[in-house]
Amino acid sequence: MGNATAPIPSDVLDHVSIAVPDLEAAADFYRDNFGCTVGDVIEVPADNMRIAYVELANIKIELMQPLDAGSAVGKFLARNPSGGIHHICVATPDADGAAVAAGAAGLRILGEGGTRPGHHGRKLFFLHPKDCMGTLIEVEETD
Amino acid sequence: MGNATAPIPSDVLDHVSIAVPDLEAAADFYRDNFGCTVGDVIEVPADNMRIAYVELANIKIELMQPLDAGSAVGKFLARNPSGGIHHICVATPDADGAAVAAGAAGLRILGEGGTRPGHHGRKLFFLHPKDCMGTLIEVEETD
Repeated sequence: MGNATAPIPSDVLDHVSIAVPDLEAAADFYRDNFGCTVGDVIEVPADNMRIAYVELANIKIELMQPLDAGSAVGKFLARNPSGGIHHICVATPDADGAAVAAGAAGLRILGEGGTRPGHHGRKLFFLHPKDCMGTLIEVEETD
Repeated sequence: MGNATAPIPSDVLDHVSIAVPDLEAAADFYRDNFGCTVGDVIEVPADNMRIAYVELANIKIELMQPLDAGSAVGKFLARNPSGGIHHICVATPDADGAAVAAGAAGLRILGEGGTRPGHHGRKLFFLHPKDCMGTLIEVEETD
């Protein structure tokens, strides 16, 4: 875990997330060109999107197709119509504790300010990219 | 390896690469907030940049500080002054073979069209993001 006294102790990237305009085409792209295994499409109505995971040996690539042009991912896709890398996700053992410690360390949390459950049931939050050198970082409780 | 008959067989992301305006500040950010180990700064004169690797258990994050505003990464930073996620890198056992097969599969390679040695000596090439759903994908020979 590197240093467990850090606000958000993590030594694992859970996934890299890529916004795409066409989820099936993106799944085919990774399957056909790299021989990757791509999981089933998961509907995520809470976030108005559909996702699928490219399952690599060391990490997952999350492919996200927004269904709502007004959502955060929908707006990102409007700015990047072909698609693009949207965020990285670090895993931490205690997401609620990490959210409190992140706030105390001056890192803003997007939305309501605490954790929320993801489609998988694990707690997560997003750090404000302006506090993270331009990178959108999701923090997710360890699987 | 998933499917070894794919043009660029890969089941590993070697790294995720993030452009940053200040390499030391970025290294401190990952060290202080996540407790990560960050390696020494590596000068890469061939690419006019300085890099450092955040060494996670399953993957590396490559932090890149361009030294030349006219370079590809320098131009990316001009568009994203705070920094941002720049590319992902897949590992494949035979980079030269993958470059030929990628071309045959209709995936354009940036620059000279074949592999070149990276700062670590391993062969690599970059696929055109327009052929990869907006994502810049580096292909690097397995370590």
